[in-house]
Amino acid sequence: MNSYRSLRIALLGAGSVGSQVARLLLEHGDEFAARVGAPLELVGIGVRDLDAKRDVELPRELLTTDLDTLVASADIVVELLGGIEPARTLLLEALAAGADVVTANKALVAAHGPELFAAAEIVGAQVAYEAAVAGAIPIIRPLEHSLAGDRVIRVMGIVNGTTNFILDRMHTEGSTLEESLAIATELGYAEADPTADIEGFDAASKATILASLAFHTEVPASEVHREGITGVTSDMVAQAERAGRVLKLVAICERLPAGEGQPGGAGDRVSARVHPVSLPATHPLAAVRQAMNAVFVTAEAAGDLMFYGAGAGGPETASAVLGDLVSIARRHVAGGPGTAGSTHAKLPLAPFGEVLARHEIALTVADQPGVLSVIAGLVALHGVSVESVRQDVRDGAATLVLGTHTATEARIADVLAALEQQDDVERIDSVIRLID
Amino acid sequence: MNSYRSLRIALLGAGSVGSQVARLLLEHGDEFAARVGAPLELVGIGVRDLDAKRDVELPRELLTTDLDTLVASADIVVELLGGIEPARTLLLEALAAGADVVTANKALVAAHGPELFAAAEIVGAQVAYEAAVAGAIPIIRPLEHSLAGDRVIRVMGIVNGTTNFILDRMHTEGSTLEESLAIATELGYAEADPTADIEGFDAASKATILASLAFHTEVPASEVHREGITGVTSDMVAQAERAGRVLKLVAICERLPAGEGQPGGAGDRVSARVHPVSLPATHPLAAVRQAMNAVFVTAEAAGDLMFYGAGAGGPETASAVLGDLVSIARRHVAGGPGTAGSTHAKLPLAPFGEVLARHEIALTVADQPGVLSVIAGLVALHGVSVESVRQDVRDGAATLVLGTHTATEARIADVLAALEQQDDVERIDSVIRLID
Repeated sequence: MNSYRSLRIALLGAGSVGSQVARLLLEHGDEFAARVGAPLELVGIGVRDLDAKRDVELPRELLTTDLDTLVASADIVVELLGGIEPARTLLLEALAAGADVVTANKALVAAHGPELFAAAEIVGAQVAYEAAVAGAIPIIRPLEHSLAGDRVIRVMGIVNGTTNFILDRMHTEGSTLEESLAIATELGYAEADPTADIEGFDAASKATILASLAFHTEVPASEVHREGITGVTSDMVAQAERAGRVLKLVAICERLPAGEGQPGGAGDRVSARVHPVSLPATHPLAAVRQAMNAVFVTAEAAGDLMFYGAGAGGPETASAVLGDLVSIARRHVAGGPGTAGSTHAKLPLAPFGEVLARHEIALTVADQPGVLSVIAGLVALHGVSVESVRQDVRDGAATLVLGTHTATEARIADVLAALEQQDDVERIDSVIRLID
Repeated sequence: MNSYRSLRIALLGAGSVGSQVARLLLEHGDEFAARVGAPLELVGIGVRDLDAKRDVELPRELLTTDLDTLVASADIVVELLGGIEPARTLLLEALAAGADVVTANKALVAAHGPELFAAAEIVGAQVAYEAAVAGAIPIIRPLEHSLAGDRVIRVMGIVNGTTNFILDRMHTEGSTLEESLAIATELGYAEADPTADIEGFDAASKATILASLAFHTEVPASEVHREGITGVTSDMVAQAERAGRVLKLVAICERLPAGEGQPGGAGDRVSARVHPVSLPATHPLAAVRQAMNAVFVTAEAAGDLMFYGAGAGGPETASAVLGDLVSIARRHVAGGPGTAGSTHAKLPLAPFGEVLARHEIALTVADQPGVLSVIAGLVALHGVSVESVRQDVRDGAATLVLGTHTATEARIADVLAALEQQDDVERIDSVIRLID
């Protein structure tokens, strides 16, 4: 052990993750000191309410509501407050003072990552945020470092545990979205207001972060196309099951070729989007059950990679936070500035309308001769070619399930608008994108 | 782009991985320069034979057989020669001169890792070896950094593609070990002399590396218990199939508790071993097909994580090598010494005899009354308790399959020795360890 002075750690937030971070830092102090080469001294825990009930009992003398003063005294600030403010201002203050930063705050990194990274670069400080995406799963570091010599083509991730739990339950128990959400809430997987999860806002924040890293390009959260799971019905789940498929909410970050052909050139564009997809049951992501997370990465040289693990949970997320803390502290002791991924590529963003996908469109149509021909003609008119048609007659109404060949989202949107205008079409029951 | 001078890269070896590394460096030079903040200049490629046939055509003027001179001129040396010498001496020379090192050489890192790391520490140089374990899969960096704040309990990996291909084929095609090996050789998955793969030497090198990283403890290759797949028969595969199980060759690195109870204390010991296991078909590792690799990690706080991808292949392994190269080059440009994982913990190694496992022992026994009772008594005499017995009579001989409760390897070895002495036991057909 060398005689490096203690590193002063300020912890902001003592919720389910923060209280575990504090506990592990206090309990395993010797082990952290040995790994880092210097003791990590927890100098304070910034909280809103000194008397709030916590998962873990924390030393009273460490708690403070004066977050500004706490931050000003730290070598490394660990931010687990969540939300944009006051987290953003506190971290900018910390970075301006030369402190390093660890954060698990996906909303903040998605919205203000570039601002934080720029502030860090000025003083040579480090910003780490492994816990901001997919909890315990190492994915930020692999994208930033391990794949730094490769060209990422696609990142497709189950990055929201709540919605995965709900969809998984709809598949395994045959329950409705509402029932599954109720269970998720009961078990603590869903928050009282589940909007951020089920409408895909949470996954969209993560898509922003993943796309920016994967493509060395700033991808603003506002550019992420977002659809949640509220449109997923029991019928859609049952239909997927019959076809040997599984519905999942995924964040897809994709490099799109400039013209025809494979991505890889300078004219490529990038897309980030969140929506439900239908996966073959044999796809590695289809096996991701309950509230687990997984990220499937395809790179030009590396081929397919998958990273699987717990996407949330106090101790699980604390593991990622502490991994960042130890790595940053080692660098602090060794000296030299932080190094970060770059956004040098500045690839243009492809509008969602130009993204390609295969769709499955289920319609209820009038049960009379010639309808199929009318609809097929209408679809063809918009330049979309039909790969498969399944027809099913029940109670006088006919269901038509059209599987399209790969087409742009814009063409599919036109097709759907035209179908809605069609007299023979009673209603569009569902639209789902297919992944091979 | 700043105006940092070029970094001089020396590449040693131009086999299937080396030639891909050279190709990508030459083709994507601008992209590497942007990611690093300085151009990466490939100053030479050290080879044994200037005229050897290669996967990729390389600029003749870069090839050299004078490896010593090449290494002496480099900022970063990328070693893809394989084997211990001359790789070891060349890298020690490079490190002594202050150069950073990237290597994919598992045998070298397993046997001489500590020597290389010590040489690097003296001058503040970096050693990276992501490609040495599980090809394209990021596993070294996650263990060294992402899990640096957690306590790893177990690492269980399919880290040899050749043996996974063979076992997978035995399962899916019902072919014998010999037939599967022949196909593996034909397809280029197995080398002309397959000993290093099928006898588990390759996996054992990787177990050494993984265990040392996971437990912050030097684990010498000589301490890794090693069994290959040559004892795996078609009967064993068929029997596993019937029980809903899959046979896999795995490297297991485990933290064993000091006494009773869970690991986690200061008195813990570590074990690293390679042998076939029987996994439930639902285990994530059971789904790893063909020549793919995967590493399943269990940590105290993070829980279960899995890393999946291609374990070999020229471009795939080149991806890992180039990821290391870019990361190291960024640090080179930023300044400051390298930081490495530590071996501070110095946990004692548990002898293989003290490792715990459940075993399934298949015996051919005399088909006469009382045999089961004799054998059950003999097993109990050695302190091993039997969880299940299946009996099967065919052609006058009876097969007895004993499933044991968890017992130490030493006790199981005693049981097997005693069974061999037993007159009623015609032969021990197979022994396989069960993973839940």
